[in-house]
Amino acid sequence: MGIKMKSQNAILLVSCPDQKGLVTTITEFIFKNGGNIIDLDQHTDLAQQVFFMRVAWELKEFSIPKEKIGEFFKVLIADRFQMKWKLYFSGEIPKMAIFVSKYSHCLYELLSKWQSGEWKVDIPLIISNHETTKPIAQQYGIPYYYLPVTLETKIDKEKEVLEILKKFKIDFIVLARYMQILSQNFIAHYPNKIINIHHSFLPAFPGAKPYEKAYERGVKIIGATSHYAADELDAGPIIEQDVVRVSHKNDIEDLKRIGRDFEKIVLSRAVWLHLQRKILVHQNRTIVFNYS
Amino acid sequence: MGIKMKSQNAILLVSCPDQKGLVTTITEFIFKNGGNIIDLDQHTDLAQQVFFMRVAWELKEFSIPKEKIGEFFKVLIADRFQMKWKLYFSGEIPKMAIFVSKYSHCLYELLSKWQSGEWKVDIPLIISNHETTKPIAQQYGIPYYYLPVTLETKIDKEKEVLEILKKFKIDFIVLARYMQILSQNFIAHYPNKIINIHHSFLPAFPGAKPYEKAYERGVKIIGATSHYAADELDAGPIIEQDVVRVSHKNDIEDLKRIGRDFEKIVLSRAVWLHLQRKILVHQNRTIVFNYS
Amino acid sequence: MGIKMKSQNAILLVSCPDQKGLVTTITEFIFKNGGNIIDLDQHTDLAQQVFFMRVAWELKEFSIPKEKIGEFFKVLIADRFQMKWKLYFSGEIPKMAIFVSKYSHCLYELLSKWQSGEWKVDIPLIISNHETTKPIAQQYGIPYYYLPVTLETKIDKEKEVLEILKKFKIDFIVLARYMQILSQNFIAHYPNKIINIHHSFLPAFPGAKPYEKAYERGVKIIGATSHYAADELDAGPIIEQDVVRVSHKNDIEDLKRIGRDFEKIVLSRAVWLHLQRKILVHQNRTIVFNYS
Amino acid sequence: MGIKMKSQNAILLVSCPDQKGLVTTITEFIFKNGGNIIDLDQHTDLAQQVFFMRVAWELKEFSIPKEKIGEFFKVLIADRFQMKWKLYFSGEIPKMAIFVSKYSHCLYELLSKWQSGEWKVDIPLIISNHETTKPIAQQYGIPYYYLPVTLETKIDKEKEVLEILKKFKIDFIVLARYMQILSQNFIAHYPNKIINIHHSFLPAFPGAKPYEKAYERGVKIIGATSHYAADELDAGPIIEQDVVRVSHKNDIEDLKRIGRDFEKIVLSRAVWLHLQRKILVHQNRTIVFNYS
Repeated sequence: MGIKMKSQNAILLVSCPDQKGLVTTITEFIFKNGGNIIDLDQHTDLAQQVFFMRVAWELKEFSIPKEKIGEFFKVLIADRFQMKWKLYFSGEIPKMAIFVSKYSHCLYELLSKWQSGEWKVDIPLIISNHETTKPIAQQYGIPYYYLPVTLETKIDKEKEVLEILKKFKIDFIVLARYMQILSQNFIAHYPNKIINIHHSFLPAFPGAKPYEKAYERGVKIIGATSHYAADELDAGPIIEQDVVRVSHKNDIEDLKRIGRDFEKIVLSRAVWLHLQRKILVHQNRTIVFNYS
Repeated sequence: MGIKMKSQNAILLVSCPDQKGLVTTITEFIFKNGGNIIDLDQHTDLAQQVFFMRVAWELKEFSIPKEKIGEFFKVLIADRFQMKWKLYFSGEIPKMAIFVSKYSHCLYELLSKWQSGEWKVDIPLIISNHETTKPIAQQYGIPYYYLPVTLETKIDKEKEVLEILKKFKIDFIVLARYMQILSQNFIAHYPNKIINIHHSFLPAFPGAKPYEKAYERGVKIIGATSHYAADELDAGPIIEQDVVRVSHKNDIEDLKRIGRDFEKIVLSRAVWLHLQRKILVHQNRTIVFNYS
Repeated sequence: MGIKMKSQNAILLVSCPDQKGLVTTITEFIFKNGGNIIDLDQHTDLAQQVFFMRVAWELKEFSIPKEKIGEFFKVLIADRFQMKWKLYFSGEIPKMAIFVSKYSHCLYELLSKWQSGEWKVDIPLIISNHETTKPIAQQYGIPYYYLPVTLETKIDKEKEVLEILKKFKIDFIVLARYMQILSQNFIAHYPNKIINIHHSFLPAFPGAKPYEKAYERGVKIIGATSHYAADELDAGPIIEQDVVRVSHKNDIEDLKRIGRDFEKIVLSRAVWLHLQRKILVHQNRTIVFNYS
Repeated sequence: MGIKMKSQNAILLVSCPDQKGLVTTITEFIFKNGGNIIDLDQHTDLAQQVFFMRVAWELKEFSIPKEKIGEFFKVLIADRFQMKWKLYFSGEIPKMAIFVSKYSHCLYELLSKWQSGEWKVDIPLIISNHETTKPIAQQYGIPYYYLPVTLETKIDKEKEVLEILKKFKIDFIVLARYMQILSQNFIAHYPNKIINIHHSFLPAFPGAKPYEKAYERGVKIIGATSHYAADELDAGPIIEQDVVRVSHKNDIEDLKRIGRDFEKIVLSRAVWLHLQRKILVHQNRTIVFNYS
């Protein structure tokens, strides 16, 4: 559902052990303080007895000042129910870093979504281990950091990258077909904040050369998967997937060509969901609220 | 989400003008009377300012007796907020009538879902304007009413059918490729309780011969649409749709063959949603809760 | 394309090393003998330099008698070009055996496609390691062989089954969610003639409990795969696949329920393609001609 | 199938009244002159008795000089069989004009496919009735013609545009969400050479505001359609369509956002097919060869 941006909204994401009265308690907190709920989605994992909720409300007539809402929610509710929670405000524009290698299709997609104003996001920088896509960055006026990586220099380079990201106060990272494997240490700095696109329908064909493997196996459908980077390669929480039908007529180059369009669209949807604060992660699975 | 059937649950469907505190008010009613909410989905139509909600809770420890819940909800809440509402109980098995003509694929689908126990539904009778599918009904042990219809006899036949349906206390009707147009009077007896399958992606190709029209137009995708019957032909609230890719290689017979599988699946999903009480109708559009 | 059945047609499937003039040579053979080609599809695997072709022609005015066509084609063309080839006639109705365990949805699908006359196929028998689905077989009037299998009796049972299949002159076998693994010896008797349905999007989640694994992994799309049985489990040539979107709201039971409809449809499409003689197998990949 | 571009290939598109021996005649022409067929697809419309064929062959050892092939084919074959035919060469890079209004997503898509080298196409100019997208054209270095249109100036403007197109030797036009209706006269200058994208699943919701209409009707799936412009609005031969699932949760803005990604992908696929010379038009339907 398209949250209207005119007045600022608060967005609260909550997960906690399930028990009676959670929805009442949270909505009452908002209601009694003058908040108008414009979007609420709740999910209970019955098997694990875990409660998840995303609720958005207008701040216009809300009696608690914006900067105090977190504190009040924590003391009055969150601590009592052992909640994990995050609070966002619709007016805050997050900072996104793009990592890219040689392939440009995902990069073009992200930059056009940004430049056209479709996404409310800042892109302070692009980082690449190749110079191939530098002209695109320049064309779109985004600083481009060329940081070639070798096995020997990897750890040092990652430190350098982390410092750059810190300097630019980057909120999250998008791996736009970035062909380097990030270290566990690096990922730990951005937990569930690094969005990757893998060019297969995971868990089929993880790792290198998925189109070649798909061709070899003779699948009739290929896909793309966007997920948060995790320690194990291509095994992080899946945000979004999509597929497209192929046939014996398609050689490997065809699969790559056909797949590219889906890679960029699937990545783009995942970034959009992340920007809308619609994703909660629980035990390597995502709860994607109000998916559409 | 699969509601567990072990203990009985109440299912409440509500729509009303939007205002603050609706979720709180309803969940509090359940919570304070000892109900454990196992499924809640809420939707607000911001443009029209209408609130929709489906909530299911366990009756096990609920302090209001089952047969009194409706009354209490009405007096304490529904009247106050001008709510339209319906209350169902998971243990009540609805009675479904099937109307069919010559094509058998949807009939087979419905009967197998019933016989295998996948659906909790009774099928007291099948009504047809042809005798073609009678052996199938017999094979599955369902009474079959052969009621041929002509323009002259239509009104009388409909009366006869209505009496039969009344006698068997039919809750809802499934038109399994029933090729007769029902009168407005007939439909008025079962508002949003007659599920039809139309063999096109509505609103494309309403009325007769949609596959012929689809071929003629040269579409690259065909579809099927399940909707509640309404006064205007093929214009009732859409419950479910699906599509499948076709090509210039497919002649009209191909489209029919390929389409049949989707007709039955789309109809089958619509019936399942209806049985789960997951559908609300508002101004010719459906709100389908927890769609999956 | 729907081959019209009125007059009998010949269907020729060919594969051979690629070289110039193959299409000309074959179509000339048909053309010069008075055959009218009603369907021709050709594919060249450029990487492997292999030529594949399916051609159907009317026998009405064909000058070579039906029973001599194979011999003439072999001597005049096939041997010269090292062709592998098969010749079928549209009027010959193949005999299909169904193997089933406890789940009935695929069985219902196959039986309804047969009984309604949609498929031109004979089903002389159903074989099962359980008695659960026996009433369905009886209802449809198909002999049902209950042959329970244990690890100890497996080899003997397979021999028994092979004898039964031989006695009934079975042409091909459909595993309609048959939960026993067939031996390599058994499979060798029916190369590319045993059609299996696996309840996942292969190669994701082969083996047991794919829906449980899909839930665990948190995929956003589930699927079904029909393939010819091969020595390695769930690794045979894929005939057809399809997928359906799911969400975090769906528990394992939901995945099973949603998936069932796709299992039966995907299996059903694969059987239809097999019946139409539209499938060639080459190095564990299928060439599916005129797919629609 | 990805035609390898290393050596030049000829691509021949043929349609004619069906009769025996057409495939033989054409392939023999290629074969006997030393051509190696690398791709052949044939389709016969049995209902209308029309034969369609696309065949590509390597020119490397072909004995007829490239510039003489058309003449020889005409005299030796085409005239004899009343063929409509077109001959293309893989090395010839067509010139594409883009028409655009305010929406930029399709424009970005086309420009990125061109700039990245994915498409072998020249884009000599962009024409627009607004200045909104001018900075994008400049960024990509493409001349931008701002030609505002009013009802009064329309005919004159179209003349001006036609002259510009002629001057630049434009081969085909892509309407990248161009919101002006072209005159029949204009379209007549580029028959089946103007590719439009309509933001609905045609023939549902032709004309203005399809997303608004889709929302109003409550469809569960929305789509996009790429077609050649024809005299009747949104009624030309369909090249490609795709769809995406939506729900009651999606308001009109959501439909637009979700739809945009499919508009650009569907348009992009249609342009690719056009560039590959894979499309034949017959009586307002397209034959799309080797679709993948």
